[in-house]
Amino acid sequence: MNDVKTFDIEKTTVEAIEWLGKFGKTSDNGITRLLYTPEWINAQKGLEELLRDKGFEAYYDEVGNLFGRIEGSKYKEETILTGSHIDTVVNGGRLDGQLGIIGGIIALEYLKKSYGVPLRNIEVVSMAEEEGSRFPYTFWGSRNIIGTVKKEEMENLKDANGIGFSKAMHDAAFDFKDENSKGREDIKEFVELHIEQGGVLEKEGKSIGIVEHIVGQKRYMIEIEGEANHAGTTPMGYRRDALFGASKMIAEIFELATAYGDPLVATVGKVEVTPNTTNVVPGKVMFSLDIRHTHEEISLKFRDDIISRLQNIAKSKKLDIKINNYMDCLPTEMDSRLVKKIKDSCDKKGLKYKLMHSGAGHDAQIFAKAVPTAMIFVPSHNGISHSYEEFTEPKDYVEGIKALIETIYCLAYN
Amino acid sequence: MNDVKTFDIEKTTVEAIEWLGKFGKTSDNGITRLLYTPEWINAQKGLEELLRDKGFEAYYDEVGNLFGRIEGSKYKEETILTGSHIDTVVNGGRLDGQLGIIGGIIALEYLKKSYGVPLRNIEVVSMAEEEGSRFPYTFWGSRNIIGTVKKEEMENLKDANGIGFSKAMHDAAFDFKDENSKGREDIKEFVELHIEQGGVLEKEGKSIGIVEHIVGQKRYMIEIEGEANHAGTTPMGYRRDALFGASKMIAEIFELATAYGDPLVATVGKVEVTPNTTNVVPGKVMFSLDIRHTHEEISLKFRDDIISRLQNIAKSKKLDIKINNYMDCLPTEMDSRLVKKIKDSCDKKGLKYKLMHSGAGHDAQIFAKAVPTAMIFVPSHNGISHSYEEFTEPKDYVEGIKALIETIYCLAYN
Repeated sequence: MNDVKTFDIEKTTVEAIEWLGKFGKTSDNGITRLLYTPEWINAQKGLEELLRDKGFEAYYDEVGNLFGRIEGSKYKEETILTGSHIDTVVNGGRLDGQLGIIGGIIALEYLKKSYGVPLRNIEVVSMAEEEGSRFPYTFWGSRNIIGTVKKEEMENLKDANGIGFSKAMHDAAFDFKDENSKGREDIKEFVELHIEQGGVLEKEGKSIGIVEHIVGQKRYMIEIEGEANHAGTTPMGYRRDALFGASKMIAEIFELATAYGDPLVATVGKVEVTPNTTNVVPGKVMFSLDIRHTHEEISLKFRDDIISRLQNIAKSKKLDIKINNYMDCLPTEMDSRLVKKIKDSCDKKGLKYKLMHSGAGHDAQIFAKAVPTAMIFVPSHNGISHSYEEFTEPKDYVEGIKALIETIYCLAYN
Repeated sequence: MNDVKTFDIEKTTVEAIEWLGKFGKTSDNGITRLLYTPEWINAQKGLEELLRDKGFEAYYDEVGNLFGRIEGSKYKEETILTGSHIDTVVNGGRLDGQLGIIGGIIALEYLKKSYGVPLRNIEVVSMAEEEGSRFPYTFWGSRNIIGTVKKEEMENLKDANGIGFSKAMHDAAFDFKDENSKGREDIKEFVELHIEQGGVLEKEGKSIGIVEHIVGQKRYMIEIEGEANHAGTTPMGYRRDALFGASKMIAEIFELATAYGDPLVATVGKVEVTPNTTNVVPGKVMFSLDIRHTHEEISLKFRDDIISRLQNIAKSKKLDIKINNYMDCLPTEMDSRLVKKIKDSCDKKGLKYKLMHSGAGHDAQIFAKAVPTAMIFVPSHNGISHSYEEFTEPKDYVEGIKALIETIYCLAYN
């Protein structure tokens, strides 16, 4: 690998992110680029041109994943893939997803300029969709690449304006894959560059995170029912205050999760109180519970433990409790050989890294079901994501791109 | 006092409540009868006719309080007043306020039929307003009777439809009192019959509550500020979770209030979480705190005690706390001589009563500033009020009316 000074990675990346961020820019300085909308189509077309200009072979698959390819000289049936998703949440930032696409393009361009044609094919992908922001379905892009989509899951989905999934896709000139076709079988490894979306790397002063696990997620909606009463005329001893019970429970969740220690996190993010009036003792409280861990057995242990505690609190306060599990997603382990290759690449280049887990979901967890997969994180300033305030110091994402370059070099040129 | 069998109090009361409940009846079986609306005007006109039919002298004051009068034979400068308010909350019940008017009319009618003309004037009042449901101003009726209204407090008030207070009042053919005129100086005593709006009498199997104190109320809005973070990527130890802090506080409020014991009550009825999203650690929580007690010094002690505990919780969780006091209303003591007269009346008639406090505000607390005042409560089934489900067993409110009859007899015929 030549000295990186022969190619100004920072300047190229800063400019490309600025340019890509204009597709779908909102009046609030955010980006709204939902699947198959004009903003999305324009961004993919813009990237297609960029890939061609840079000398890549550019092509779409049936559903609209866009690939930029440099064919290998020797192992033509093996492809090393990098990239991320082009869609955003409503009013999202310019780095979530997009940094992985831009970083991938620049890494491949750098490699080709520095070392010429690789032994294996190298490709960068701008995936159609990951966020689930337009239709209630996530990872549409990566699921199609590895071939695990069922058409009937999608056909009846509608967006907020009542537009059906099929119509939106057909209007954008894309279509379902043939259900009998398998996913791509040439992909040998997948490496995704992404912002951390948390504050750990920044707090610890590291530019690079090498992901070992993506957490599993369990989500619950918990309903506590007591009795609504007049706040003045009901003595404390006569009350069945649903909010008092819920408060004991929410505090218990936080404290037990803290006692379990990292990487377990448990969050109550949403609370609805009924009737929610100053002078009425709350009769009902609904609250969400989100539990995440890298290892399913600990996640299950925590779940059983906290549910039993919540039930005890309900019982002792004479409240009814209903617990509804509406999401259960297993943790994913990254490929240990690939993780080691990224570590070795960082060590070789003197890049400081932290072995860590991802607390958020990523396309990498879909790929990991089919091919050896790994992820490289760069810091998120103040841990902020899904906001126009998303920011990573250019020096940090340059380090991430260098790690990606070195890793792909190991995988495709050797 | 003759035997009550000579006059069917129960039948007369049940029918009158049924009849009055039709003014402003909603499709949800509730009653919406807001100050100076057509429903309100019709109800007052209906009552005016009823009073005339029953042989009372009926008249309005300037603002629309309706009085029914039986002039005394001896002490014409002294009036014994009973009654309550004719307005309701939105979709309220048929007893809150109205029972005190109907009960007062029936009590006076019974007394006249049984004993003829009293020594002192006896009057029943259907007060214009108590709830503050149309305009953000409570006790408009009673405040005008005792003469403590300032015109400038009202003039700029608007209802939910933007209609000004003065216009609404003028359209109903009423007007402000002359600000220089004093309140009525002939009122010697005021006794209000009202539903309890709590569940104490029903739970204790008593038909009558004799109110000794009306609680004071302090209301606060408390704002807890932490930091909103991604629920997956922020380790527990990095969180400044405003909801965790608020939950500890809400539990502490309930537990400390319970430890203080009756009659102290403290209620958190309203909670607003920001951003209130399943997968985001809450950055901000606002919650209400309502503190009530019959004695100001204990209320103040509790307030200081709980505020200091909330501040300690905020400090220990690294959260910011702002406490805004937006209501501070002193407790009111009922007149002890009148309370004794009601007790004696109940004892004489063999009626079972409980000496108690009122946890809700009433017109009686306004009158108590100016004249000896007392209240008689009857049970609220399940403690429910401000709902079409408001219900009191007729046998219970008949007992209440009997106590009222006996009390007014003592005050006006001796």
